[in-house]
Amino acid sequence: MKKVDHIGIAVRSLEETLPFYTNILGFACIAIEEVLSERVKVAFLDATNMRIELLEPTDSTSAIAKFIEKRGEGIHHIAFQVDSIEKRISEFKINGIRMLNEVPKEGAAGAMIAFIHPKSAHGVLYEICEKKPLEGNDSD
Amino acid sequence: MKKVDHIGIAVRSLEETLPFYTNILGFACIAIEEVLSERVKVAFLDATNMRIELLEPTDSTSAIAKFIEKRGEGIHHIAFQVDSIEKRISEFKINGIRMLNEVPKEGAAGAMIAFIHPKSAHGVLYEICEKKPLEGNDSD
Repeated sequence: MKKVDHIGIAVRSLEETLPFYTNILGFACIAIEEVLSERVKVAFLDATNMRIELLEPTDSTSAIAKFIEKRGEGIHHIAFQVDSIEKRISEFKINGIRMLNEVPKEGAAGAMIAFIHPKSAHGVLYEICEKKPLEGNDSD
Repeated sequence: MKKVDHIGIAVRSLEETLPFYTNILGFACIAIEEVLSERVKVAFLDATNMRIELLEPTDSTSAIAKFIEKRGEGIHHIAFQVDSIEKRISEFKINGIRMLNEVPKEGAAGAMIAFIHPKSAHGVLYEICEKKPLEGNDSD
């Protein structure tokens, strides 16, 4: 794992939540994007040494909508940056770790992402993400 | 907020959980400590740009024991480093933010800590922490 890339937080509404992060915590909102495949709208906040990703469901069938329905708003996942996501998934599987995604899928900002099954991670939903090269992501 | 200091994760047993973090994720365990006031034993892992704090309850009356009983193991809180915790608490209160601790209390490694009420933070339990000076903490 290279480092923590972001923490994903499920929220009902970006519009209602962003003022807490920008005005009270003082973080800059650096991007807002819709991820159609995940049926979420996301806002990225610059928390200095990593980013906070707020996730608002755009549809009641979204995994984020189901999370909020079951547990309320709150922390959804922690994402680690990796160099080669395919290699990492292979290593996890060799070590008996269950993946929610054995084949990486496209996430926000064009990154390739996969989730570890929380049953293999003591209740935490961990994402691994390989970012697109040549876009200055190394300076994150 | 200076940066994210650590993510706190509630676990039933440090002994059972640590191998996932050290062997599978590859993070070094940098300290294990008992925080008597919180009735937890904590392990800190170096996740490169921040730390992961695993919290094992030492007593069924611990807040971490109650969290696990209610929701299972999982992510408990996110902690931000601040320069002056007293000043931050005052600012939060002026802005109508509810605190779980209006007076800072001592946490792990002698840091002074306080939690924001999750109702004021869209369901997330945020800690602010002011670390002890003169112990090389600036290089964390």
